[in-house]
Amino acid sequence: MTAQAASPRILESFVAGRWTRGAKEGKPLLNAATGEPVALIDASGLDFGAALEWGRSVGGSNLRKYSFHERATMLKALAQALMDHKEEFYAENFLTGATRADGWIDIEGGIGTLFAYSSKGRRELPNAKVLTDGDVEPLSKDNTFSAQHILTPLEGIAVHINAFNFPCWGMLEKIAPSLLAGVPCLVKPASQTAYLTELMVRRILETGVLPYGALQLVSGSAGDMLDHLTGQDVLTFTGSAATGQMLKAHPNVIREAVRFTMEADSLNSAILGTDAAPDTPEFELFVKEVAREMTVKAGQKCTAIRRVMVPRAHVEPVIVALSARLAKTVVGDPAAETTRMGALASLAQREEVRERIADLSKDAEIVAGDPGSVKVASGDAEAGAFLNPVLMHCSKPFDAQSVHDVEAFGPVATVMPYDDVAEAVALAKRGKGSLVCSVFTNDPRVAEDAVLGLASHHGRILIGNRDSAKTSTGHGSPLPGLVHGGPGRAGGGEELGGMRSVKHYMQRTAVQGTPRLLSAVTGRWIGGADAESGSVHPFRKSLEELRIGDQLVTGEREVTLADIEHFANFTGDTFYAHMDEAAAKANPFFDGRVAHGYLIVSFAAGLFVDPAPGPVLANYGVDNLRFLTPVNPGDRLKVRLTAKEINPRINADHGEVRWDCCVTNQADETVAQYDVLTMVAKAWPLVEAAE
Amino acid sequence: MTAQAASPRILESFVAGRWTRGAKEGKPLLNAATGEPVALIDASGLDFGAALEWGRSVGGSNLRKYSFHERATMLKALAQALMDHKEEFYAENFLTGATRADGWIDIEGGIGTLFAYSSKGRRELPNAKVLTDGDVEPLSKDNTFSAQHILTPLEGIAVHINAFNFPCWGMLEKIAPSLLAGVPCLVKPASQTAYLTELMVRRILETGVLPYGALQLVSGSAGDMLDHLTGQDVLTFTGSAATGQMLKAHPNVIREAVRFTMEADSLNSAILGTDAAPDTPEFELFVKEVAREMTVKAGQKCTAIRRVMVPRAHVEPVIVALSARLAKTVVGDPAAETTRMGALASLAQREEVRERIADLSKDAEIVAGDPGSVKVASGDAEAGAFLNPVLMHCSKPFDAQSVHDVEAFGPVATVMPYDDVAEAVALAKRGKGSLVCSVFTNDPRVAEDAVLGLASHHGRILIGNRDSAKTSTGHGSPLPGLVHGGPGRAGGGEELGGMRSVKHYMQRTAVQGTPRLLSAVTGRWIGGADAESGSVHPFRKSLEELRIGDQLVTGEREVTLADIEHFANFTGDTFYAHMDEAAAKANPFFDGRVAHGYLIVSFAAGLFVDPAPGPVLANYGVDNLRFLTPVNPGDRLKVRLTAKEINPRINADHGEVRWDCCVTNQADETVAQYDVLTMVAKAWPLVEAAE
Repeated sequence: MTAQAASPRILESFVAGRWTRGAKEGKPLLNAATGEPVALIDASGLDFGAALEWGRSVGGSNLRKYSFHERATMLKALAQALMDHKEEFYAENFLTGATRADGWIDIEGGIGTLFAYSSKGRRELPNAKVLTDGDVEPLSKDNTFSAQHILTPLEGIAVHINAFNFPCWGMLEKIAPSLLAGVPCLVKPASQTAYLTELMVRRILETGVLPYGALQLVSGSAGDMLDHLTGQDVLTFTGSAATGQMLKAHPNVIREAVRFTMEADSLNSAILGTDAAPDTPEFELFVKEVAREMTVKAGQKCTAIRRVMVPRAHVEPVIVALSARLAKTVVGDPAAETTRMGALASLAQREEVRERIADLSKDAEIVAGDPGSVKVASGDAEAGAFLNPVLMHCSKPFDAQSVHDVEAFGPVATVMPYDDVAEAVALAKRGKGSLVCSVFTNDPRVAEDAVLGLASHHGRILIGNRDSAKTSTGHGSPLPGLVHGGPGRAGGGEELGGMRSVKHYMQRTAVQGTPRLLSAVTGRWIGGADAESGSVHPFRKSLEELRIGDQLVTGEREVTLADIEHFANFTGDTFYAHMDEAAAKANPFFDGRVAHGYLIVSFAAGLFVDPAPGPVLANYGVDNLRFLTPVNPGDRLKVRLTAKEINPRINADHGEVRWDCCVTNQADETVAQYDVLTMVAKAWPLVEAAE
Repeated sequence: MTAQAASPRILESFVAGRWTRGAKEGKPLLNAATGEPVALIDASGLDFGAALEWGRSVGGSNLRKYSFHERATMLKALAQALMDHKEEFYAENFLTGATRADGWIDIEGGIGTLFAYSSKGRRELPNAKVLTDGDVEPLSKDNTFSAQHILTPLEGIAVHINAFNFPCWGMLEKIAPSLLAGVPCLVKPASQTAYLTELMVRRILETGVLPYGALQLVSGSAGDMLDHLTGQDVLTFTGSAATGQMLKAHPNVIREAVRFTMEADSLNSAILGTDAAPDTPEFELFVKEVAREMTVKAGQKCTAIRRVMVPRAHVEPVIVALSARLAKTVVGDPAAETTRMGALASLAQREEVRERIADLSKDAEIVAGDPGSVKVASGDAEAGAFLNPVLMHCSKPFDAQSVHDVEAFGPVATVMPYDDVAEAVALAKRGKGSLVCSVFTNDPRVAEDAVLGLASHHGRILIGNRDSAKTSTGHGSPLPGLVHGGPGRAGGGEELGGMRSVKHYMQRTAVQGTPRLLSAVTGRWIGGADAESGSVHPFRKSLEELRIGDQLVTGEREVTLADIEHFANFTGDTFYAHMDEAAAKANPFFDGRVAHGYLIVSFAAGLFVDPAPGPVLANYGVDNLRFLTPVNPGDRLKVRLTAKEINPRINADHGEVRWDCCVTNQADETVAQYDVLTMVAKAWPLVEAAE
């Protein structure tokens, strides 16, 4: 906290390629725990139209030069570099009122999101610049006209307007999918904690990892920025519903059909299952989780539990247990090691929470805590925005409105009784759409009834029980792989969710045409497209030599009854359809004894494999295998194997090749269709590693 | 046209379970070709709040009782019943000014969409009430905490506000995915052609196929309906950008985060490829397609071609060829057999088109047709809303604004020159987002450059060439399996696209918990969940007896070097990694000779198959097979086979069962992981079909 002695930092914006100060002196931002000035913020005089256009033209075209894997690799490098600076971020985190544990969510949780998008991106996306989406849609019987959906990066800029409570994570969870998609970003953090975002953006830009123009920052008010958005841009917002609605209804956002997504605070709930009596592990886990959600970040989390639904018989024990836990929460200087809960973001924020508690008091009574008097173990109770946890109780939640509608964005929650699962679900839905709900139960039937009842109104539902007590990531944590957002009151948006959110920054386009031209566009061989059967077996071509459409058509092999019997006895698979003519005939799918599906694919491999060492290193799997026509003794098999997708890895000497494998019989009917997955060396012979 | 002699029909609305007239006498709707009154329309006095709530509570809960397959079967029954009435619809279609060919798109195209959603729904969705979305996301190393995304129907109502140009298709393409998702609908057609929609809704309701409350109709103004929408509802709009923007920005739509999707008219373009000189098939196809798009529905299609981009050298030949084709278009009484183009929807619509042509004249000159004088082969040129096609030419399209911005919603298009593919792409993008663009080329490189350049600004791109000349569905036709919609000017929405649009009416929820409870919620066995190894082999259980989690753990089988050599010689797959120790060791993935992947799965089947006739009828495929650990001679294999998904078919004696198949070695490492797909009889022994 020694940094506080210095004069406040003047925050800068990074727009159109340079760090810039606002035209005015700036508004002071105060340390949440001490009231001392930390920084001055102002963005007046900036040319936002020029900033957006610079991002689109410079940042967009630079980003789109890279493949998904290359951009994913950048995210990893960025994450590693930020980890090296983490103590610098923790130091500023304290100024926001947050403890080190709170800061971990924001700082390392945010950096972890970069890591997650980097590894998921390389695992789940191809090393290409265009994504295909869904299967080929055949549109003609003779295979001369088909369609394939593709996803390409939008050519605009993503403007991310973020909330004050997660200055790091809030930025990183949004720029990770944007950048991976190939779309440049402009980040506008909430002023209150913008100094920490500004510091992190400085460190990001210093790494030089991101292409020029990929990231901009506005420290201060966004001015007329929204007037300059276009239909290729994306506007995201996290924060209060009122501000979000204003942005969404902005005339230019409406006129240009700017892609908009919003994640607003909601009245999230936690439900204690009907089975979770006070002596069960689930009861204890529930009490712990509610207390944790009330106190982490001093309750300033959009996912925090605001409503606590409890079987009527257990209301009293829950209140007793929760009150005891909350009373033990050490409130004070966020930098002090013994502190469990720091300060709210500002004194104004504390006043706001007190007013909301007053609103809630119409329908609920305070059963633990006192919003009027502050008790701290360290720090200055007057100058800092401290507030001890407040637990409320609403005995008639179906008659109450405020408890389902008024959000006190601080360490406040309301307990309410219910009589059966359907009632608990109905109460949760009174929130009119929430980000998350948790259900504590060990009973599969309670889990099923509650989750399926709740799902339409929630973006995420956590089931808590004894088995996941140690591994659960908790009610309040959005995860990179899971969607974050919720319907109605929660804003109707969707973020994260792994590669789903990457697609939020891309345009889906249905492309129709003849397979040959579709293949040229998608870089993926499509049934009906040209194929090249040269003199060289395609397994003898390195990844660099191989081309989409390279094809092998094998000779024929007859499947004899002896083969079938031999295979059955050798493998032990003596299923009657292979062994017993009469029984096979009785089967609705067969006219008599048939070959094993595994015999067909084994013989197919015997037909297409090239035995000598070569660039094809391994068959690592098979996808979408379907047996389409039964194979009877005497049928003659033939294989058509075509290079379908070529995916060179970066940082490796090989890549994946997906082969379309079509096995036909003597009547040219397809008996089996599947994708064969192989690892293929980039060059052959293998280059010896340098000593 | 004899129906015209009668007095105009009074259109009714079907709301809250009954057919209702508006409080006032109603606005007359006129026959587009004759000006005679067809119907009176009014919806004043209706209680829209009650209608929506009735749909949600009655229709929603009734629809959600059924599975996806059951609802898909309803769509098919509906489609069949409507086909029986098609001549009735064609008769009213003429009143809208449309020819029989135009009506085919609207009537049979619409009914075809029901058929398509029915068959796609049964093929691509499970016979269940909840969808899983994406893979299981493991969240803990010890498999005690995982997540699965699910999709459940929204609990609101879908309000579909449709355009006048497709009174049947416009309704059917939206109710098909809504109803399949399990969400009730309220349809509000544009007044001008609402009589045809009303007739079709009557026929739909008369079938009794749909659950009570699933479909409502408002004939007339929507009044205060939008004030009653909630965050569980969906509002869709097709029509003019101005009206769409008003709906989107409606305070209650914004406040409640009502799901909104919009499909607006856009300045669609067609590009003649640089390779498509006047003597190529592509040139001829291009001219035909542009002429067709200008004249079908008298150019009143949101997908119609408005901008025609042509290599500078070919502008003159294109204008000559197009003008000749358009001059031959017989305009007149839509019901006359020789007529190729009918009337616009109304005289007001014709005046509107003439005004837009005047706007375009700032930047373009008329090169064919005369908006001021009408020539018809039949019908009344004065009383009917006829207009002959008008072709314009803009010589400097980069300096022009109106041609990229002003839409004349009629038989009007503008030819403009370009110099290279990049310029053609840039011009198309000047439309600021379109529903569709077509590119006529036979050159894969032109196709690639054009399509990838255009994709960010388009929802659909059609490549036209000689190979697909006979099978192409054409520039203007949205298809059930392909997305329909576009960014920016086109409204930023997405419809159709097969099962994608079903999901627009569902809420995606990430569910986290221990695998046992997650399995209970999703009805799908998840790795780590409980499994039941009983005394009965699971292959001996019928579909009705089998339970998710029923498991077989087999004994071990050793893989010997002799087995590998034997398999290699038997199948012909003598790949060196199986046959040659030294060569196998040199391979970066292996430590020595390994068993064939196909040997592993064949032995696995030998371990898990139960040979005698039983309810498991066939193995029809394998999904997601991955070989994870090499198998060396001496390794001992073991299989764990678990029932993962059970999908009983309706209207069949069997269903699909998906088995999780995990093959491990003696060290309990997974060597292969895949899904085995089987057909299983609902009852065993098979019930003999009645004679």
